[in-house]
Amino acid sequence: MRHGCEPIEGRSRSDRRQRKAEPLIAQGARAVASIAEACREGAVLTMLANDNAVESVVLRKGGIIDSLPKGGIHISSSTISVALSEALATAHAKAGQRFVAAPVFGRPDVAAAGQLFVVAAGSADALAAATPLFDAIGQKTFVVSETPKAANLVKLSGNFLIAVVIESLGEAMALVGKGGVGRHQYLDILTSTLFSAPIYKTYGALIADRKFLPAGFAASLGQKDIRLALAAAEELRVPLPLASLLRDRFLTLMAHGGDELDWSAIGGLAAKDAGEEG
Amino acid sequence: MRHGCEPIEGRSRSDRRQRKAEPLIAQGARAVASIAEACREGAVLTMLANDNAVESVVLRKGGIIDSLPKGGIHISSSTISVALSEALATAHAKAGQRFVAAPVFGRPDVAAAGQLFVVAAGSADALAAATPLFDAIGQKTFVVSETPKAANLVKLSGNFLIAVVIESLGEAMALVGKGGVGRHQYLDILTSTLFSAPIYKTYGALIADRKFLPAGFAASLGQKDIRLALAAAEELRVPLPLASLLRDRFLTLMAHGGDELDWSAIGGLAAKDAGEEG
Amino acid sequence: MRHGCEPIEGRSRSDRRQRKAEPLIAQGARAVASIAEACREGAVLTMLANDNAVESVVLRKGGIIDSLPKGGIHISSSTISVALSEALATAHAKAGQRFVAAPVFGRPDVAAAGQLFVVAAGSADALAAATPLFDAIGQKTFVVSETPKAANLVKLSGNFLIAVVIESLGEAMALVGKGGVGRHQYLDILTSTLFSAPIYKTYGALIADRKFLPAGFAASLGQKDIRLALAAAEELRVPLPLASLLRDRFLTLMAHGGDELDWSAIGGLAAKDAGEEG
Amino acid sequence: MRHGCEPIEGRSRSDRRQRKAEPLIAQGARAVASIAEACREGAVLTMLANDNAVESVVLRKGGIIDSLPKGGIHISSSTISVALSEALATAHAKAGQRFVAAPVFGRPDVAAAGQLFVVAAGSADALAAATPLFDAIGQKTFVVSETPKAANLVKLSGNFLIAVVIESLGEAMALVGKGGVGRHQYLDILTSTLFSAPIYKTYGALIADRKFLPAGFAASLGQKDIRLALAAAEELRVPLPLASLLRDRFLTLMAHGGDELDWSAIGGLAAKDAGEEG
Repeated sequence: MRHGCEPIEGRSRSDRRQRKAEPLIAQGARAVASIAEACREGAVLTMLANDNAVESVVLRKGGIIDSLPKGGIHISSSTISVALSEALATAHAKAGQRFVAAPVFGRPDVAAAGQLFVVAAGSADALAAATPLFDAIGQKTFVVSETPKAANLVKLSGNFLIAVVIESLGEAMALVGKGGVGRHQYLDILTSTLFSAPIYKTYGALIADRKFLPAGFAASLGQKDIRLALAAAEELRVPLPLASLLRDRFLTLMAHGGDELDWSAIGGLAAKDAGEEG
Repeated sequence: MRHGCEPIEGRSRSDRRQRKAEPLIAQGARAVASIAEACREGAVLTMLANDNAVESVVLRKGGIIDSLPKGGIHISSSTISVALSEALATAHAKAGQRFVAAPVFGRPDVAAAGQLFVVAAGSADALAAATPLFDAIGQKTFVVSETPKAANLVKLSGNFLIAVVIESLGEAMALVGKGGVGRHQYLDILTSTLFSAPIYKTYGALIADRKFLPAGFAASLGQKDIRLALAAAEELRVPLPLASLLRDRFLTLMAHGGDELDWSAIGGLAAKDAGEEG
Repeated sequence: MRHGCEPIEGRSRSDRRQRKAEPLIAQGARAVASIAEACREGAVLTMLANDNAVESVVLRKGGIIDSLPKGGIHISSSTISVALSEALATAHAKAGQRFVAAPVFGRPDVAAAGQLFVVAAGSADALAAATPLFDAIGQKTFVVSETPKAANLVKLSGNFLIAVVIESLGEAMALVGKGGVGRHQYLDILTSTLFSAPIYKTYGALIADRKFLPAGFAASLGQKDIRLALAAAEELRVPLPLASLLRDRFLTLMAHGGDELDWSAIGGLAAKDAGEEG
Repeated sequence: MRHGCEPIEGRSRSDRRQRKAEPLIAQGARAVASIAEACREGAVLTMLANDNAVESVVLRKGGIIDSLPKGGIHISSSTISVALSEALATAHAKAGQRFVAAPVFGRPDVAAAGQLFVVAAGSADALAAATPLFDAIGQKTFVVSETPKAANLVKLSGNFLIAVVIESLGEAMALVGKGGVGRHQYLDILTSTLFSAPIYKTYGALIADRKFLPAGFAASLGQKDIRLALAAAEELRVPLPLASLLRDRFLTLMAHGGDELDWSAIGGLAAKDAGEEG
């Protein structure tokens, strides 16, 4: 398997895309002129922004389904809906191809260091074939199921859990802050005692600093992931009151123009509700 | 300062209390016959179940206020309301005594090992006087304010954050579990990646195992702390939607007889709402 | 305009559908063999269960778009998504046809009596053409906009408001019931004082009686409408915390097999959370 | 029973209170110089702002308990906590007096017209004695229990239901308003169809007009009532998610200085969350 051909972001016809590709090429990536070319060697990994982008690249005429050879493998690392993952699995199977869902955890700097965590699901032979690629991008791979969509569900649930951490820090800081305790000191107490996980440090600092730009992960993407988690939960009939609350937080943020802020900006809303000038 | 006189749990007249005291005495504690005796040397630490217990021991006739000498110090490590903490501070000041709020974080095994975290607030001289005691019970002390009640607010907010972790794990496990992913495997993924803090491991395991007995911290106490956090938030006018949700979870649990379960039992409710037989 | 041709439910090939049509025919309806036949006279009204049914009847090959003449009019009285309403408006405009969204309020008995309320939106001339039909099915028509989808939004918001009434009665009855006040007496107090609207009487009685079968309006349809209200709200970036809460109630109900119960069955969940045997 | 002596608002020593009393005296009320004087004839009705005011007037030295003769009757029409109602019942019983809880529904204009609804609870003989007074202030009396606190619970649950109506109208109007439908037209549709109860008209108009001053019932009192409903629900272990949501709405309003606005002002918050300039 060649790694140089990934990730595909559709045909990069525009100058803008070309400019974005240049630093990758400088690091050894190989640009391709078409999806067909990317698929020629029988394996392709996609890591795209949302369901629409993936649908377009995979299912459209001349897309991955059309281009992959029989027995070829598509590794989908995008954070997409459980429903689309299932549709892709079906479409690839129909075309005699293999499909692995392999979403990843890690912010951009972690990805750059090849230290992502990979959550993978698919048939045993497809997973075996994909392993070298997982090793290239991640520090560890967790296989959760033979059914690809299970990996997408785990990924969505993980982002849900992170968003809960953000919201909970936002509320706790709004409370102790209005009670006279400094946000940074408070965060220091939390993270040097029970809440030592890096996400508390990372997001806690962003919230304490009210520093939501530039976005490591945009609020609009966070909102999308909560929507997908809620959609999966609805399909499975699992009420998720915390996710419902997060949904409303993201909509409030975006109703006030916050699409491009880091998703941790929802962590500032509790303080606004508590009267902080904004 | 003598440490042997703590903690007070009121006059231990009953046999039951005597039996509870025996192992402590065997380890070097000294039993006292009255609050007055406990206070004689000028310093006393209380660690009691709730506001009522503290009020009774401190404010009643023959209680700590009556018994401590002028300049004496009362260190309150109970998880009590912000309002009572303020009332105690006022009462001690009026009596010419010093008051330090010093609630602690840590489950019973951590306390036994002297590895608690202490969050302390009070006047500089009172904190200085209390430091040897903090060192005896805890691994680290955080001073957050000169106003005692600020420490209680931090403690309550910390328990709120833990309860949010419990609820979020409950919801996430209900979701992925119904989607076919094993709860224990899922927890392993979480805790070996982004959610490495011990609380995720500890509570995640209890929830995955549905093992809510014996209680490390009873649901009724958890409910009390959420109530106190909400009361403090109301006083400060800070809306806390997550705490409101937790409140309803605890009431649901207790309406079904769950008072004595570990508070992580609220982490099993999402799965029940999703149809799991209970 | 002929009224006899409505409502279409697709080609009634099956015996079952034929049997369902017979009583209508006995009352003067005319059965048609195809959508094309129903559309021949230039006007058609659809009242179907959900987006999929409407999409299929309108947009498929040989559907309403294909069958209506230029200048023909499609009156859509189904409770469908705002997004589909917009898509239908666009498709009909492209085909030189007119489209009116005209959802209705009223349970089956009200519809049978021709006493529905019609909420309509569309171009002035299309609304004028549809008026005789509105008069036939309803007691009053409210024109809300020239843009069809606005009528669908009003309909969804109306069902949302009804569901809130159901949930609020469920919570209030759980509270006073556990406090020793009879549910029926309580309902009598409410409806003879401030809550005199028929919906309080209708749904209050169902909840007080715990009589959720047969369904006047199935829980699965209620859940669908809340989903569509949330989807419209998401598109418009309007947080709706009450709708989020209703969403979770419906999922809880359906996770326990309640799809076919009357949607007022969510009004029984608060009492279950409060410990009522169920 | 003399009606002229009610309602007591404590000793009106201040000029301000005297000025407030004058118009009542002009209409035939008789001013009294002390609680003792008001209680002399054996019956007294109190209608005060909150628990503290009632506690003070009833339980303090020289208060109603001290002043009423044996067999005397205290009719409490204040909206107070279930817990205080129980405490008052106990205290009066101990003093050989009778206690009736008789909270009322109706805004000030309704009260002025003697058209309140009275919800009463107490022993049969006490209720019989109070009936002439109920007839004087209200258009109808509902007896709900022999236990006084049950009437207070009904009252609190009623205010909870009204607040839910306010919130639901606020959310629905935020939704359709952002979707292009006029708030006033929308309200007209609602109130001339399914939502014909006066509360929808009254509060809907205030929300549509964003007219929250002067307050018919202040937000701070609304918040208090939701708090008391939640406290009663906690005691009974009844989760009330809608009440929790209302709690947070009131705190948000009051955190922004809204104490003195009409409580329907929480109906403007959904639109603010949706981005409306405020």
